[in-house]
Amino acid sequence: MDKTIGIFGGGQLGRMMAQAALPLNIQCTFFEANRDCPAAQMGQVIDAQLDQAIETFIESAEVFSLEFENTPLADVDQLIKHKQIHPPRQALAIAQNRLLEKALFDQLDIPVAAYRAVDSLQSLEQAVRELGLPIVLKTATGGYDGKGQFVLRTADQIAEAWAELGRAKHLVAESFVSFSREVSIIAVRGQDGDVKTWPLAENHHHHGILSHSIVPAPNSAKLQGVAQDYITRLLNHLNYVGVLTLELFVTEQGLYANEMAPRVHNSGHWSIEGAVCSQFENHIRAVAGLPLGSTELIRPTVMVNIIGEHPATAEVLALSGAHLHLYNKTEREGRKIGHITLMPTDHAELTNLCRQLAEILPVPLALTTDMQIDF
Amino acid sequence: MDKTIGIFGGGQLGRMMAQAALPLNIQCTFFEANRDCPAAQMGQVIDAQLDQAIETFIESAEVFSLEFENTPLADVDQLIKHKQIHPPRQALAIAQNRLLEKALFDQLDIPVAAYRAVDSLQSLEQAVRELGLPIVLKTATGGYDGKGQFVLRTADQIAEAWAELGRAKHLVAESFVSFSREVSIIAVRGQDGDVKTWPLAENHHHHGILSHSIVPAPNSAKLQGVAQDYITRLLNHLNYVGVLTLELFVTEQGLYANEMAPRVHNSGHWSIEGAVCSQFENHIRAVAGLPLGSTELIRPTVMVNIIGEHPATAEVLALSGAHLHLYNKTEREGRKIGHITLMPTDHAELTNLCRQLAEILPVPLALTTDMQIDF
Repeated sequence: MDKTIGIFGGGQLGRMMAQAALPLNIQCTFFEANRDCPAAQMGQVIDAQLDQAIETFIESAEVFSLEFENTPLADVDQLIKHKQIHPPRQALAIAQNRLLEKALFDQLDIPVAAYRAVDSLQSLEQAVRELGLPIVLKTATGGYDGKGQFVLRTADQIAEAWAELGRAKHLVAESFVSFSREVSIIAVRGQDGDVKTWPLAENHHHHGILSHSIVPAPNSAKLQGVAQDYITRLLNHLNYVGVLTLELFVTEQGLYANEMAPRVHNSGHWSIEGAVCSQFENHIRAVAGLPLGSTELIRPTVMVNIIGEHPATAEVLALSGAHLHLYNKTEREGRKIGHITLMPTDHAELTNLCRQLAEILPVPLALTTDMQIDF
Repeated sequence: MDKTIGIFGGGQLGRMMAQAALPLNIQCTFFEANRDCPAAQMGQVIDAQLDQAIETFIESAEVFSLEFENTPLADVDQLIKHKQIHPPRQALAIAQNRLLEKALFDQLDIPVAAYRAVDSLQSLEQAVRELGLPIVLKTATGGYDGKGQFVLRTADQIAEAWAELGRAKHLVAESFVSFSREVSIIAVRGQDGDVKTWPLAENHHHHGILSHSIVPAPNSAKLQGVAQDYITRLLNHLNYVGVLTLELFVTEQGLYANEMAPRVHNSGHWSIEGAVCSQFENHIRAVAGLPLGSTELIRPTVMVNIIGEHPATAEVLALSGAHLHLYNKTEREGRKIGHITLMPTDHAELTNLCRQLAEILPVPLALTTDMQIDF
C-alpha cells in the first residue's frame, strides 16, 4: 500500500470510497461504531465506542476524510492537532449548521430562500409575519432526509411546530420555495486548486428519501453553468479539498441553494459507471494529493436507490446494461441498502428499462411505471 | 453476503474478480500459497501449503472457479466430489496440454498451425522433415509467457532443441505461422448457455510478455465474426461456464488459433472501463448463475501493462481519462504489477496519450513513442 486514508464513518459511502482507492494502492481505515458496517469488507474498522478509539484512528492513517457530515467536530479537532483532514473543518462546521450555511450562501451571492433564525416562540411568530406562509421550520443542526422539519401552512400551526421542534433551540424558518424540481451539482477540488464538476443530477424523492437521479438533468444546459459557478465559489472560498455536493431547487426565478453536503453524495453514485472518473475515485485522488480525473459524462445514466428490501439480483442483472451495487446491509424499512445504475443507449430504452425496474423493485419508490424522462 | 465463490489462485486476476463480486454481495475466498497475494485485501486466503488446505477451501464457498490454468487437476478432482467448479474440469485439462488443445481445435474446425506430437529425438527429426523449417518446439504442459519454447530455424539446431526441452517428454512441434499480428477474443457463457463476446483485442508483446492491448483491434470488423464463431464452438462443445480467452494469429490465410486460456485474461483488463460489463463481473455472474451483462464497447480503449517497476502514480493520473490499476505487488523484473487504461475520445488523443505514457513508464515495453494506432 502506498498510503492509508482514515475515514470517519463506515457506511456505503466509505465502502465505495475504499473500492475506488484499492486500485490506486490506497487503503482505508474506518472510524465507526458498527463492526459489521458496509465498509468493513474493504478495510480495518476502528470501533468508535472503545476507549482511545480516536487515538488509534489517528495512528491508523496518514491523511483523513469523512463520509458523513455529522462527524463530531470534537473528534476532528483532536485529529487536526496531529494530521490533516479533507474537506477542511470549516466546511464541516458550516454544513452542520443551517444558519451558518445560509449565511455563507448569502455571503457568496448564492441565492437561497428568504429565512430567519428562530430560537423562541416569539421569534417564530415574527418570522411568520415577515416571511409570510407557507414556511418550513428546520432545526439548525442534526436534521437529514426530511427529519427535523415542519411545514407550516397556516398560522394556527405555529404552536404545534414549536412544540415539535422547539427543544432544538436553534432553528431556521425558510420561505417555502416553489420549485419545479430538485437538482444537485457535485464537484471536486484538488490540493492544487483544480476544480472539476460533474453534470447536474435531477433528483426524485419518495417520502423524503432519494428515489432516483437522472443525469444529466433534463433540459439543464443553462442551469449547469450557473450551478458550476455557485459550487466553485464555495470550493474556492472554503479552500476545500475533496468532493462537495450542492442541492439546488429549480424555480421560475432560477436556481436556489437548498443545502450543501461536504462529501460524496447519493445523487453522485451514477458516476461510477456514467462518468470517466467517479465521485469516489476523485474524492480519494483529492484527499491523497493526486491529480483529478475527468468528470466527463460517458452516457446518460439513471441511478435508482434500493430502499428497505432487496430485489431479486437475477432480475436486476437481466436488465440490459444494468449495474447492481449492494451495500451488504440488512433489510429495514426506509434504509438505503443498494443502488442500481441504468445506462441506456437511447431514450426509448431508458423509459423501457425504468418501467421494468419499477416492477422488479419491492419498493418502487418514485420510479412509477408511467415516468417520462427527456434528456 | 449472498454467496461465496472459492477461487484457485490469489493473484491480480482473483483480486479483480473479487472487486467485481463485492457490489453483488458476493464474496471470494482464495486457495493460494502466498498469504500476501494481491487478492488478500479482498477476501480470505486459505494457505494452500497447509495440511487439509483443500478440505478447508472446499468448505469455504458454495461454488468455485479459478484464476490460473495450471490449477492442479488433482485438487479439482477432490473438489468436484463435493462442489461445482466453473469452468468445467475438461476445459482445464485441455488448456493444460497443448496436444489436447490442438486436437480440440482440429475437431471443431478451428484452424491451427500444422503440428506433430514429439516424444523423442527421432520424432522431432521426423516432425522437421514433415513440417519443414522453421518450427516452434513447445512443451505440451507447463509453458507460459514464452517459456518452454524453442524456435528451430535450421536442422543443426535439432539436437540443441531436444537437449533443452526433451526432458519434458511430451512436446509439440508447430509450423511457424507467419502472422501480421496477434489478437485475442474473450467470451463468456452463462449457466443457461447464453454467450456474449467482447470486441477483439490486438495484443503487443515485449520479450514474450503482454505489453499492451488495443480494443477494438484495428481493422477487425471481418475478423470479429470469425473469432466469435470459433470461441462459441469451444464454449458450447465444452458446456463451458465463465470467461474463456482464445488467442489468435492474423495471417494472410485468415485467423489461426494459438492457444486458449480457461479464465479471465490480461488482454481483457480494458473491459473494466471500456465495456458495459467487464470480463471480471461477467465471470462472477456466470459462476454465480446470474444473467450475463452486456459486453458492448463503450469507447475504444488501450490497456497498458505495468511491468517490473511502478511509474509515479501522479504522472499516470495526470493523463486525461487514464485509470490506474495497481495489484499491491512488489517490484521485480518482468513481473506484472499493474495496468493502465486509456480511454481517449478520438484517435489523435490516443496517439498523444500513448506517447506521454511511454515516457512515464520506467519500462516502456512495446509502447514506443512513435506507435501508430488506427481504429
